[in-house]
Amino acid sequence: MLQLDEKILNQIIKPRPLESHKGNFGKILTVGGNQQYGGAIILSTAAAIHAGAGLVSCATSPQNLTALHSIVPEAMFIDFNNKKAVSQAAEKTNVIVVGPGLGIDIPAVNILENILRNSRKNQFLIIDGSAISLLADNQKLFKFLKEKQVIFTPHQMEWQRISGIKIADQAEDTNKKQQQKLHATVVLKKYHTVIYHLDGTSSLLPIGGPYMSTGGMGDTLTGIIAAFLGQFHLKDYEQVIDAAVYCHSAIAAELSSSHYIVLPTDIIGRLQEFMAQYTNS
Amino acid sequence: MLQLDEKILNQIIKPRPLESHKGNFGKILTVGGNQQYGGAIILSTAAAIHAGAGLVSCATSPQNLTALHSIVPEAMFIDFNNKKAVSQAAEKTNVIVVGPGLGIDIPAVNILENILRNSRKNQFLIIDGSAISLLADNQKLFKFLKEKQVIFTPHQMEWQRISGIKIADQAEDTNKKQQQKLHATVVLKKYHTVIYHLDGTSSLLPIGGPYMSTGGMGDTLTGIIAAFLGQFHLKDYEQVIDAAVYCHSAIAAELSSSHYIVLPTDIIGRLQEFMAQYTNS
Amino acid sequence: MLQLDEKILNQIIKPRPLESHKGNFGKILTVGGNQQYGGAIILSTAAAIHAGAGLVSCATSPQNLTALHSIVPEAMFIDFNNKKAVSQAAEKTNVIVVGPGLGIDIPAVNILENILRNSRKNQFLIIDGSAISLLADNQKLFKFLKEKQVIFTPHQMEWQRISGIKIADQAEDTNKKQQQKLHATVVLKKYHTVIYHLDGTSSLLPIGGPYMSTGGMGDTLTGIIAAFLGQFHLKDYEQVIDAAVYCHSAIAAELSSSHYIVLPTDIIGRLQEFMAQYTNS
Amino acid sequence: MLQLDEKILNQIIKPRPLESHKGNFGKILTVGGNQQYGGAIILSTAAAIHAGAGLVSCATSPQNLTALHSIVPEAMFIDFNNKKAVSQAAEKTNVIVVGPGLGIDIPAVNILENILRNSRKNQFLIIDGSAISLLADNQKLFKFLKEKQVIFTPHQMEWQRISGIKIADQAEDTNKKQQQKLHATVVLKKYHTVIYHLDGTSSLLPIGGPYMSTGGMGDTLTGIIAAFLGQFHLKDYEQVIDAAVYCHSAIAAELSSSHYIVLPTDIIGRLQEFMAQYTNS
Repeated sequence: MLQLDEKILNQIIKPRPLESHKGNFGKILTVGGNQQYGGAIILSTAAAIHAGAGLVSCATSPQNLTALHSIVPEAMFIDFNNKKAVSQAAEKTNVIVVGPGLGIDIPAVNILENILRNSRKNQFLIIDGSAISLLADNQKLFKFLKEKQVIFTPHQMEWQRISGIKIADQAEDTNKKQQQKLHATVVLKKYHTVIYHLDGTSSLLPIGGPYMSTGGMGDTLTGIIAAFLGQFHLKDYEQVIDAAVYCHSAIAAELSSSHYIVLPTDIIGRLQEFMAQYTNS
Repeated sequence: MLQLDEKILNQIIKPRPLESHKGNFGKILTVGGNQQYGGAIILSTAAAIHAGAGLVSCATSPQNLTALHSIVPEAMFIDFNNKKAVSQAAEKTNVIVVGPGLGIDIPAVNILENILRNSRKNQFLIIDGSAISLLADNQKLFKFLKEKQVIFTPHQMEWQRISGIKIADQAEDTNKKQQQKLHATVVLKKYHTVIYHLDGTSSLLPIGGPYMSTGGMGDTLTGIIAAFLGQFHLKDYEQVIDAAVYCHSAIAAELSSSHYIVLPTDIIGRLQEFMAQYTNS
Repeated sequence: MLQLDEKILNQIIKPRPLESHKGNFGKILTVGGNQQYGGAIILSTAAAIHAGAGLVSCATSPQNLTALHSIVPEAMFIDFNNKKAVSQAAEKTNVIVVGPGLGIDIPAVNILENILRNSRKNQFLIIDGSAISLLADNQKLFKFLKEKQVIFTPHQMEWQRISGIKIADQAEDTNKKQQQKLHATVVLKKYHTVIYHLDGTSSLLPIGGPYMSTGGMGDTLTGIIAAFLGQFHLKDYEQVIDAAVYCHSAIAAELSSSHYIVLPTDIIGRLQEFMAQYTNS
Repeated sequence: MLQLDEKILNQIIKPRPLESHKGNFGKILTVGGNQQYGGAIILSTAAAIHAGAGLVSCATSPQNLTALHSIVPEAMFIDFNNKKAVSQAAEKTNVIVVGPGLGIDIPAVNILENILRNSRKNQFLIIDGSAISLLADNQKLFKFLKEKQVIFTPHQMEWQRISGIKIADQAEDTNKKQQQKLHATVVLKKYHTVIYHLDGTSSLLPIGGPYMSTGGMGDTLTGIIAAFLGQFHLKDYEQVIDAAVYCHSAIAAELSSSHYIVLPTDIIGRLQEFMAQYTNS
């Protein structure tokens, strides 16, 4: 297992080409945020914007519109109950994040199915939180993942649901076996997160710590991964995912020297300055 | 009476165990905030999150949803008129704060009763503000407090209401006598707050001052107590309460050297860095 | 005419008495903010809170509730269409600000009349913006100002409306004559603001400048005056008004050395630290 | 083609005249922001306020009211569906920005027509984003631009729509030819933006970079141009436009030394201090 270190940031975070426009840095669509968990999709969206995504639309409950704009007026809004608007947005995007705060009720399943059904071949699909649980319970939805570039970002209980492996049995070998069957990258979030790659290799995240054990932390990660995939165009895109995961925890580690706990909002607020350190490589 | 000093922070605020997850640091439920007093529950919730609680849900009026997320997108939301959702949340939580901005009308009584009825034996119940007044007026609700770990956080008028002791007569002995009958910890907020413990001892807070005489200060304290109880697991949990009360005023005292008055928002914004100072003990 | 200088701040801004509570520092009610001008009453309310008022309630349009709490969760809210709630709040308060963003339509007149009718003898009434224009057009409302401590804060056009003196003719003598007829303190806002006192004296503000020519600046002043009157209890309360007016412009002047223009939000954010400088006098 | 440099800021950003009032620094009306793109008009409005406009009203969807005030309580609000209120506001203003986030549906066309129809001879009309596309598709609206001071701020695709010149063919000569037919200043936003003036000259912006390729950047520019036109009264007002465009990118360039990408919100937050540097010229 490759142990990630700071070099991954030097490899991935590059100065931007001078002649470029927003489209070069990714059109991101984030989908989630019901009445109860609206903050999750707001954090994901804000993280994507602060991590450098070119254009970010957030498909969420209309109840979250105003809080979204109060936190990131840079975001665009789509009512996630508007099936047509969501499917059109899904088609026109490079990277989709689906799941943060989506919930597990019937409307949530319908939204997830609509997104998956309308996503395109060459898209990145970051599937997080309740969307993972929904997939585990609706196996027929897996057919829509074919020929997409799928990234799952489960915590251990969500991994249990989708892999069938109980938390106590989640060892590297068993995890890898199930991940390979999913034909997806798996970012298994835990103390020392592991990223399982499509080619059977995996990366270990040796940084991060309990100062990150706070609500919304995983939602924030999805936004960073989305922004990195949207703007850093490597053939081996799983290196880009590795870098995003490392970046998220490296910022938290840095802040933890002065903060007892690190909040998602803190990480989001530090992204732009943190990333600037790596452009002189 | 024990006079609290900074040592209590060194004793209680400890480095977090490396292998841990959000659940280890408390599931908090804050309940309150009607149309008039929505800010109160937002401040309580924000304080809990910044003080390190693992997961925080806020049951409040739907009118407060957007302001809640604008201030702390890390919070989760529950409509406090949704009896079933509130009772389910009450069951699944470690610490409940009830009262900030709840009001004293009929719906408020019903919400309070619902919360108390559905709280569990080993839970912490922090009862603040209007919830104290409501209890004083609805003695039948006291039966739900049995075998819970109850903390009252009255100011002197609220203490008068629930103890029957007029403010002029609130001396240590009479206070203690009534507090013992309540089988609850009492944080009596005043110039030099006193914390009355279950075992008959009490702690005096020698810090704090008139720069704290501003709306929302007590609401903020409830959130800090909740977060501390959620994450610092001592058998003698009243030491944890002492530490939370000390922390709240110590931050205010520190800020008062540069601020004519200290606002709740200032204290909330300083919690993470302040607490970081005590992990090297 | 007395020329104000920094000494007025040393005279008025005093260390708070140690044994005190929120009630000692003023219960403020701010009234205004229709759909079009909601920001005005939010700025007034936020200024009152940051300038040290004990408790601040804002009676405004329900459309402004969420933005109010997003900016100052410390504030309490009253629907200004709720006649009973507003009149009850008016009775229980020490200082009323009425006018910022109130508008001049029929509902606005009714709200103003309700406030004036329910204000009490010993209250401070700060009448600003559209409330001044409404009074000018509804002379029958003047009877409610009797035996109150009234402060008008007009700009020159509003002063023309209520005094009948055209802007070109607004000289010290003519102004004073009309101000004396009003039995009110008049803060005439202009380049070098003048405060006309009840005893016929007046104070000149020699500071402030064109960096303050931006929307919301006067609304912010009303909140500072309210907070000062609520917490600094001098028999000669017009000195307190002088200090509040000086404080507002002194902060702006200080910030103007680094800011091309100074926004109301900047002044509000600087109040607590600015005022702290004057407690060692 | 004139290559702009920092001198343009020294020429345009002047100390304000001492005796002045808000009206001297411009009454701005910003129009845009449907449900999907509300952030765009909020950013434009916030930029106008922070860049020194005297008074700024924002005509937008009621859904954006609260987020607008949460970000800039200094702004005034108009429901953009209220035809009468919008047309009255258009008449009373010095500078109109129309387009950011307006959308291209039927209501958007009607709002645009209402604005253009009610604008006055000596007004500045900044036409941006979807309003440019709408004009391209509704040629009959051009008649309302006669004898106005019109500024178009297209990106290359919008310029293609309104000029008929395909992006690949957008060379200086062809651009200028079409711009002259429009009788309008054209700020053509691209890597090295060009400003085409009414007299046939043009200015090249040699600064700015890919750190600006993020959603909302152009919306922010419209607010800065509006504020500059509102407060800096030069006969040759196109120099003022040049300065606004330079200012926007100069702030971004400055921030890019420490920020991997620069967000609109960052530029808005830096405007006041940045502009203060140029008043000693």
